[in-house]
Amino acid sequence: MSTVAGSPLADVQSSMEARGIELDDVGISGLRYPVRVEMANGSRQCTVCEARLSVSLADDVRGTHMSRFVELIDHAAVISPSAMIAIVADLASRLEAADASVDVSFPLFIRRAAPVTGRSALLAIDCRLCASHGASGASLRISARIPVTSLCPCSKEISDYSAHSQRGYVTVTALDASWRLGEDGLWPEELLKVCDDAASAPIYPVLKRLDERHVTMLAYDRPAFVEDLARDVAVALRDEQRIDGFEIEVVNQESIHDHQAFARVRWGRS
Amino acid sequence: MSTVAGSPLADVQSSMEARGIELDDVGISGLRYPVRVEMANGSRQCTVCEARLSVSLADDVRGTHMSRFVELIDHAAVISPSAMIAIVADLASRLEAADASVDVSFPLFIRRAAPVTGRSALLAIDCRLCASHGASGASLRISARIPVTSLCPCSKEISDYSAHSQRGYVTVTALDASWRLGEDGLWPEELLKVCDDAASAPIYPVLKRLDERHVTMLAYDRPAFVEDLARDVAVALRDEQRIDGFEIEVVNQESIHDHQAFARVRWGRS
Amino acid sequence: MSTVAGSPLADVQSSMEARGIELDDVGISGLRYPVRVEMANGSRQCTVCEARLSVSLADDVRGTHMSRFVELIDHAAVISPSAMIAIVADLASRLEAADASVDVSFPLFIRRAAPVTGRSALLAIDCRLCASHGASGASLRISARIPVTSLCPCSKEISDYSAHSQRGYVTVTALDASWRLGEDGLWPEELLKVCDDAASAPIYPVLKRLDERHVTMLAYDRPAFVEDLARDVAVALRDEQRIDGFEIEVVNQESIHDHQAFARVRWGRS
Amino acid sequence: MSTVAGSPLADVQSSMEARGIELDDVGISGLRYPVRVEMANGSRQCTVCEARLSVSLADDVRGTHMSRFVELIDHAAVISPSAMIAIVADLASRLEAADASVDVSFPLFIRRAAPVTGRSALLAIDCRLCASHGASGASLRISARIPVTSLCPCSKEISDYSAHSQRGYVTVTALDASWRLGEDGLWPEELLKVCDDAASAPIYPVLKRLDERHVTMLAYDRPAFVEDLARDVAVALRDEQRIDGFEIEVVNQESIHDHQAFARVRWGRS
Repeated sequence: MSTVAGSPLADVQSSMEARGIELDDVGISGLRYPVRVEMANGSRQCTVCEARLSVSLADDVRGTHMSRFVELIDHAAVISPSAMIAIVADLASRLEAADASVDVSFPLFIRRAAPVTGRSALLAIDCRLCASHGASGASLRISARIPVTSLCPCSKEISDYSAHSQRGYVTVTALDASWRLGEDGLWPEELLKVCDDAASAPIYPVLKRLDERHVTMLAYDRPAFVEDLARDVAVALRDEQRIDGFEIEVVNQESIHDHQAFARVRWGRS
Repeated sequence: MSTVAGSPLADVQSSMEARGIELDDVGISGLRYPVRVEMANGSRQCTVCEARLSVSLADDVRGTHMSRFVELIDHAAVISPSAMIAIVADLASRLEAADASVDVSFPLFIRRAAPVTGRSALLAIDCRLCASHGASGASLRISARIPVTSLCPCSKEISDYSAHSQRGYVTVTALDASWRLGEDGLWPEELLKVCDDAASAPIYPVLKRLDERHVTMLAYDRPAFVEDLARDVAVALRDEQRIDGFEIEVVNQESIHDHQAFARVRWGRS
Repeated sequence: MSTVAGSPLADVQSSMEARGIELDDVGISGLRYPVRVEMANGSRQCTVCEARLSVSLADDVRGTHMSRFVELIDHAAVISPSAMIAIVADLASRLEAADASVDVSFPLFIRRAAPVTGRSALLAIDCRLCASHGASGASLRISARIPVTSLCPCSKEISDYSAHSQRGYVTVTALDASWRLGEDGLWPEELLKVCDDAASAPIYPVLKRLDERHVTMLAYDRPAFVEDLARDVAVALRDEQRIDGFEIEVVNQESIHDHQAFARVRWGRS
Repeated sequence: MSTVAGSPLADVQSSMEARGIELDDVGISGLRYPVRVEMANGSRQCTVCEARLSVSLADDVRGTHMSRFVELIDHAAVISPSAMIAIVADLASRLEAADASVDVSFPLFIRRAAPVTGRSALLAIDCRLCASHGASGASLRISARIPVTSLCPCSKEISDYSAHSQRGYVTVTALDASWRLGEDGLWPEELLKVCDDAASAPIYPVLKRLDERHVTMLAYDRPAFVEDLARDVAVALRDEQRIDGFEIEVVNQESIHDHQAFARVRWGRS
């Protein structure tokens, strides 16, 4: 027990609470921390996450103990879909809470070779893992934001030549069932492939001129609206047994406007 | 009809769509626009919003017509809770869509006098109005993010003198029923008062020394955790007949850490 | 004088300072405020700025009086190039400072008609005015960030068809001499025209299909690297008598990469 | 040479340029990459950087070769003050440029024990290294942004009890001479110590109640304005032989306002 000159320090957080209101989430956010992330192939990658951790708070307790959240992240050796389920259960237990959630966002880096010359470098994919623990069991959502090239089908069709293109981002958020099924998780490489297949062209960190020629013509051969991208990714994912649902959001940094175009579709296994 | 040299331009967006997937939202985001906002007292304030507008897209239509969203905002004369309901219905009608949503975020400025000297200036309150239109009718959510001073009750209790304080933000998002009830909406001034009452001290744009002395001692006399703030605001709002539900999120920029502490509570009329 | 129960409050800021270090800038930042901006044609536009105001602090004074900065912005009726010169002089005078600076950033909105159909809406241009006052006199820098479409000359040349395009931003920062010369300032409309002329195509808030066809082919007919854009804008501005110098930065949101390409050039009258 | 069907691809970037304007910087920005950073004690830390690399472009060359910048970062094994000098020289050489600059920003993590209980976790420090290479030789700027607690001296003096406190950030940017002198660089741990000594209290990732009591009273015992912080850090650094100059910026997230207070001082060895 914490004492000063022999007297215990008051534990204000544990004092009685009379307003009778249970809180859904109490915790910390904006905590940056280095983490090692385990990829689907078992390799581990060092990166930096931003973490948000919280627990529910019963209606008769005044406050939670914030320092324990930081200690939990400090002790987390490795982040992976299955590790997240263990971490959030541990959090609920340490904080004696009915519900808990752990939400970590971080870039992962995928080595990617240019399509013709094979010159390679790393592409950053923003990922997010959100694990929840509660009376109804545990759940895990996995997100990846994939950059793509999109070329406008309308612009191509109505113009005598050329078509406008732009950078877009496909954010796939999947309700992951793989950890429950004991299978490998649907992890960034797989989501990257699904989005690349739907895009006008994949995005690469390094392109030499022969590669640039290739992706320029590829994009013109495969025009796609944000609506097309969202639907093609949805078609590819809805037969995936390792996920129970998804939300797909496609955002285009329109090259002919100073605002974005977007499309979103949600789906859940019934 | 659009023609070039007498031939009509193809309408690619309206072409047949075979994937059989309805999209929840298709539209534009990140559009900045000047708007006039009507306050609860009927006065109007010029500000700048960031808008996101979308419609659902039937499973047999390939794309929406993005230019109409910008034209809709351009024609919107005034933004208010009741105007939002009309705008989103108009959007659904123009785009021939089952569902539509309009989401605008903007700062409003409230003139606020210092507590002792009365010196005044404007305080920015980030507000957001989200209107939805669909088969189940219309709905409106109103958000306001109120800056507050919070002083830590634990720090005060366990220390021989002083206590750490920090800036916090209380974001109240209310499911508004006032437009339906034909009453004045719950609008920033009212939400500001609720949050000020729960805070250790209100935040002011201008404070002279006599005022600074006042708020320093006031905050020490009214310590509040993020949990306390969330609960006090919830207590104040749950008897409010003009709202059908709310989410309250309190975030503290902890002065003794480089991360945030937060609390969140949701409530809905059953 | 501020007093409590007849006793004056200590003025800690004005107390003696022994470290002997003059500070270059002391003030406030991140202050959001509604402002009316006077355009070159004399019309006034309501918008919202983010302000940063500061003064130098002599080596024998401990602190400045922060509340006066907010009061100054509150009293500023209109923002214009010449008004900025008056505001910064007033700031130096009120704070009894050798040097002062006032820096305000805000979006301005320009009505812009689509190139074929003439359908119009507002385009947001991020602007910034920085005025300085000191022993060597006053100076004013004006910035505008103009969105443009750029189409890659290399991609066009090496591909059998099409070329990748993207949204870019040209930020022109000019050392303004017009207020000194008693001439109309170089203001967003003029900078917008210079950047549009250098771009592959201008950016519009609303484009119908006939317009989209026009800008698609226009961009293909006028390919431009970030380097070309920077140079063309520099050529247009260096003969401008109303400016004493400039910095031009062009940033492209590359559609084939997930990073930006940029070019920058500075020039000053010798 | 790049060829398609036996014909070489045009090298548009190397084509003649007639506008006669040299560009100060041409390159890429916003590139995220994993890097290993070598600390002063020789240990290496994995983190993620955002990089900006550029070269000057002669007045008779139309464009630079953007893909080489990414390859350079991909090949950089380790980032350290001395490595940065080598990397920027390599960049100038590969791009055949008169001037080059490499600018990398990344968080470093410092293990830090709570002041009473000794419980420890990692504190993120935002760092930045900017190396330049040109006709006048090479130079290196090192920045670190240190979070601190500040307690207002005025609030303490004029109030009967307590004082407002807040989180602040001290950003020190030093013109580093150590790589030239062959000495260990001034690196985050040292800058962290200087800022902690100037602050009302250091900031810690984990604090137990005994620690919170300690920092609460420590801050009250050591009140400091932004002006005081800037001056105390300046006094500590101006006798440092390993730096040729510095800029110190202190920004306070005022707990009684919704804007920031800041102070800035620059110094250079004459």
